[in-house]
Amino acid sequence: MELHFKSWADVAPRLVAVAAGRAPADLVISGGRLVNVQTREVLDWQVAVADGRFAYIGPDASHCVGPDTRVIAAEGRYLIPGLCDGHMHIESGMLTPAEFAAAVIPHGTTTMFTDPHEIANVLGLRGVRMMHDEALMQPINIYTQMPSCAPSAPGLETTGFEISAEDVAEAMAWPGIIGLGEMMNFPGVINGDPQMLAEMAATMNAGKTVGGHYASPDKGRDFSAYVAGGAADDHEGTAEADAIARVRNGMKSMMRLGSAWYDVESQITAVTEKGLDPRNFILCTDDCHSGTLVNDGHMNRVVRHAIACGCDPLVALQMATINTATHFGLERELGSITPGRRADLILTSDLKTLPIEHVIARGQTVAMDGKITVDCPHYDWPDAARQTVHMKPLTADRFAIAAPDGANTVRAKVIGVVENQAPTEALSAELPVIDGRVTGQGDTYQIALVERHRGTGGVTNGFVSGFGYTGQMAMASTVAHDSHHMIVVGTDRDMMAKAANRLAEVGGGVTIWKDGAELALVELPIAGLMSDRPAAEVAAKAEALVAAMAACGCKLNNAYMQHSLLALVVIPALRISDLGLVDVTKFALTDLFEENT
Amino acid sequence: MELHFKSWADVAPRLVAVAAGRAPADLVISGGRLVNVQTREVLDWQVAVADGRFAYIGPDASHCVGPDTRVIAAEGRYLIPGLCDGHMHIESGMLTPAEFAAAVIPHGTTTMFTDPHEIANVLGLRGVRMMHDEALMQPINIYTQMPSCAPSAPGLETTGFEISAEDVAEAMAWPGIIGLGEMMNFPGVINGDPQMLAEMAATMNAGKTVGGHYASPDKGRDFSAYVAGGAADDHEGTAEADAIARVRNGMKSMMRLGSAWYDVESQITAVTEKGLDPRNFILCTDDCHSGTLVNDGHMNRVVRHAIACGCDPLVALQMATINTATHFGLERELGSITPGRRADLILTSDLKTLPIEHVIARGQTVAMDGKITVDCPHYDWPDAARQTVHMKPLTADRFAIAAPDGANTVRAKVIGVVENQAPTEALSAELPVIDGRVTGQGDTYQIALVERHRGTGGVTNGFVSGFGYTGQMAMASTVAHDSHHMIVVGTDRDMMAKAANRLAEVGGGVTIWKDGAELALVELPIAGLMSDRPAAEVAAKAEALVAAMAACGCKLNNAYMQHSLLALVVIPALRISDLGLVDVTKFALTDLFEENT
Repeated sequence: MELHFKSWADVAPRLVAVAAGRAPADLVISGGRLVNVQTREVLDWQVAVADGRFAYIGPDASHCVGPDTRVIAAEGRYLIPGLCDGHMHIESGMLTPAEFAAAVIPHGTTTMFTDPHEIANVLGLRGVRMMHDEALMQPINIYTQMPSCAPSAPGLETTGFEISAEDVAEAMAWPGIIGLGEMMNFPGVINGDPQMLAEMAATMNAGKTVGGHYASPDKGRDFSAYVAGGAADDHEGTAEADAIARVRNGMKSMMRLGSAWYDVESQITAVTEKGLDPRNFILCTDDCHSGTLVNDGHMNRVVRHAIACGCDPLVALQMATINTATHFGLERELGSITPGRRADLILTSDLKTLPIEHVIARGQTVAMDGKITVDCPHYDWPDAARQTVHMKPLTADRFAIAAPDGANTVRAKVIGVVENQAPTEALSAELPVIDGRVTGQGDTYQIALVERHRGTGGVTNGFVSGFGYTGQMAMASTVAHDSHHMIVVGTDRDMMAKAANRLAEVGGGVTIWKDGAELALVELPIAGLMSDRPAAEVAAKAEALVAAMAACGCKLNNAYMQHSLLALVVIPALRISDLGLVDVTKFALTDLFEENT
Repeated sequence: MELHFKSWADVAPRLVAVAAGRAPADLVISGGRLVNVQTREVLDWQVAVADGRFAYIGPDASHCVGPDTRVIAAEGRYLIPGLCDGHMHIESGMLTPAEFAAAVIPHGTTTMFTDPHEIANVLGLRGVRMMHDEALMQPINIYTQMPSCAPSAPGLETTGFEISAEDVAEAMAWPGIIGLGEMMNFPGVINGDPQMLAEMAATMNAGKTVGGHYASPDKGRDFSAYVAGGAADDHEGTAEADAIARVRNGMKSMMRLGSAWYDVESQITAVTEKGLDPRNFILCTDDCHSGTLVNDGHMNRVVRHAIACGCDPLVALQMATINTATHFGLERELGSITPGRRADLILTSDLKTLPIEHVIARGQTVAMDGKITVDCPHYDWPDAARQTVHMKPLTADRFAIAAPDGANTVRAKVIGVVENQAPTEALSAELPVIDGRVTGQGDTYQIALVERHRGTGGVTNGFVSGFGYTGQMAMASTVAHDSHHMIVVGTDRDMMAKAANRLAEVGGGVTIWKDGAELALVELPIAGLMSDRPAAEVAAKAEALVAAMAACGCKLNNAYMQHSLLALVVIPALRISDLGLVDVTKFALTDLFEENT
């Protein structure tokens, strides 16, 4: 697949010669206990590698050792296949593919199926191609799922670019494309939306995998209609019954443990207690923040968690290796330690706690004892990707909300943030009018959606509550799911202008201001979504950001994520977009002021 | 795949509409117990079908019923997926693809992976295309594996045509090609034969499956080298340890029960006793005679047998449905009763004895209570395929074996047939010279290989023993694995000439003569290998043939098969080909007369 990595067919002559003992291997690992995910066994077997692929596995690889062969003595440790993340968004880590790879390689991740949905909203097909190209430069396997839904909610928001069925068809010919990214417009599929069906058809006609996203508890006709449309997996299930419904219908149940997703424990009982055939269950992360990657791990964290939930360790490993590979048509390419496959493996001394002691990808050591030992090359991101905040400096006046003539107070709609939940509440509040402008009070303050893709200069103003902010502050972010304009929340219009202008200056990111000074800044110059700095640096800045939010009075858990989701117009109840305030329960724009004000 | 059958993508809009209840289904099956091979469960679920694919499965399909919907009341019977044969040769049934399909459909077979290796030897790529084209005309799914080895033993025999790596690459683009047929030149692979590796590379580069054939008990370096070459499955295992070695190495273990293969019972213990993950085990037939199809069954016979060997019925069904489909990259296309897949299913009232009561393929009833209810269209076989016995009438003299000058007896090599075994013995016998000609005596008689592909007029003469023939008789067959010239065995040279000339007259087949008269004849006009008459008719003629062999004194089990394998120059020890007598242990031609005669 990767342009610089030879196929099994290309290197078969050498693999045969090595296995037969006629040519030396590049690498032999002896003295290990091989976890065979094909049979679900542990074997005292040795491994020989040539040209980045397994050439031989068996009781004795000594016939593959030549004078230049590197020999690793596993000393009784387990050899497990490199871990696969079945579905995830790199942008969620605020990292480029290269730095994301560098962060997860020491955790034993050697394959990721990534959906660059966020950059698609900012830069369209061209942005997807940039992510795809940097992915293919890495020493591990990063496959790209072509984003399916930009905009996520046509008519309710304007993205930087749109993804068409023609774009999908074009991308299917790229070398690193593995299928279609999560088809999140599930109402569209259920209702037979021609564009959604055309995108899935283009994917199926290319022999690739359609990713699913069915974010509804319904398992009746709507669910059945969605399945009939062609989605092959789903990671939106949250309950055991969700997982069971998906596998019974011939989909893969992807169970996720992300930074803020906890859907493994509630679903894995379909296997551990109900005894369903585990082959159709796959582990994934979906979204991981850089802090999680730095402090907790990646797929190793998910597998450990699955085991802690009572899953047999070998079954849990299958769910992060062979099951994933099989789902994407890559069972002959990766996901098991068997001849011909990419030589991706981990040495670990314990199958339950899963310490990641030595990581090998394509036959080369890529990490030892938690430290990366290989280069993750950076793509040369063009100016078009680095200058995506298209706005002129804003004055505080642009955040003023004019009151109806003569009104002393106004009853306005307020987006209510709910701790630890993605949905918001649709609240309303009676707000004072000061100098002809409606003004927040108490825990209600202003929110603005600043258009940043096409330089229209547009600003949508509204109100939000629930963060607990006090004093004169503002926070701004160009991570603003899903269309990724700029969300500004503040108690003070001047601070709001300063925060917004600061992001225009640095090319995007997140900033927080208080009493005229910047408290914290995370620069995200690539598309306003990603840093090209290492994960540890980004995680430290993100931590400082959270501390700064707390210093402004915020006591919410996951407060930054709550901020970045305030424009997510596909999840109820009340959101903001560049087109106005959105009543998501009605999928319609709505006025800021309540009627009969 | 099939040109006349619409893809899931093509019909997705209707499937979605049916599942959602907006459009009526073509067929609904209610009151059944659905065997879900994805989860290994039995569910009281209903099924709706549209455009030949499953549109809905679930507890209640009543919303899919319209005024024109056909409703089948399953009345408590099980719904199981149509059965898949993972590897087989249609020619072994002496039937064309159409008549083979007609024979197996009432047994519940709805998918076959067929390797037209025999016709490839007679007609080359053109013959493969004919088989492929007739396969695609059938109401069930017949995928073609491109034959990999014609000739099977280059230098030891001459085929009608040869298959090149370029032929393989060309065929990979045909609509019905699923992969490469069994790579039987395993010594070639192990030794790095460039043509064999090129054929496998062409297949892998096309994203298709390389079929394996590793007919050796060795599981050491040779086996490992063969695996490293790229074969993805193997059906030549005969012992539990064979099956285990294959799945541990990332191959699929195909376990066969054919007319003369009994390799399930000895291998399935890898699952039933050793507890290996069953996902990599697949059931197949490899070779079935028409009599087996008429009297005993096809894949239903194999599944029943696996269950009788102690395999859980649901696991055994997985081995003949979802496991097979997944192996060939068709898990989203067939092999389970789940939305979008081809609506291939069987109604049966018992999961152990597996009576095949109603067979549905692509949504249409194709058999009821053992009777086919659908047409299996015939390809218009051209003259080139119907006139493949290229020889002028032979006289008895052509079968004379001249003795060395002045010899009274000669010690000659004799092919020794061993009952119920494919290998022959390399015997020798002191034979009398009569009228200057070496002559058989006792249980030793003549064998001749008559060239029939290129009209060279060549006849190779030798001796064979073990059939028990007496009197003046001869038997001739144009089924003569693998190059399929004509094998004539007889106690009398005149009878041998009559038998050979008779086959030239009818365009190929099998005939047996005694005392100047024909006792039995099976006409096989298509390539000298197949009849286009129904299986029952061919089976009756084949039965009459066996009776005629017995009338000539033959007491061997499977005597006809022994006859047809006498030219199989890839299996030890002594064989005959158009180039001469072959010592297969040395892979070399050898003299008929022993040295020092």
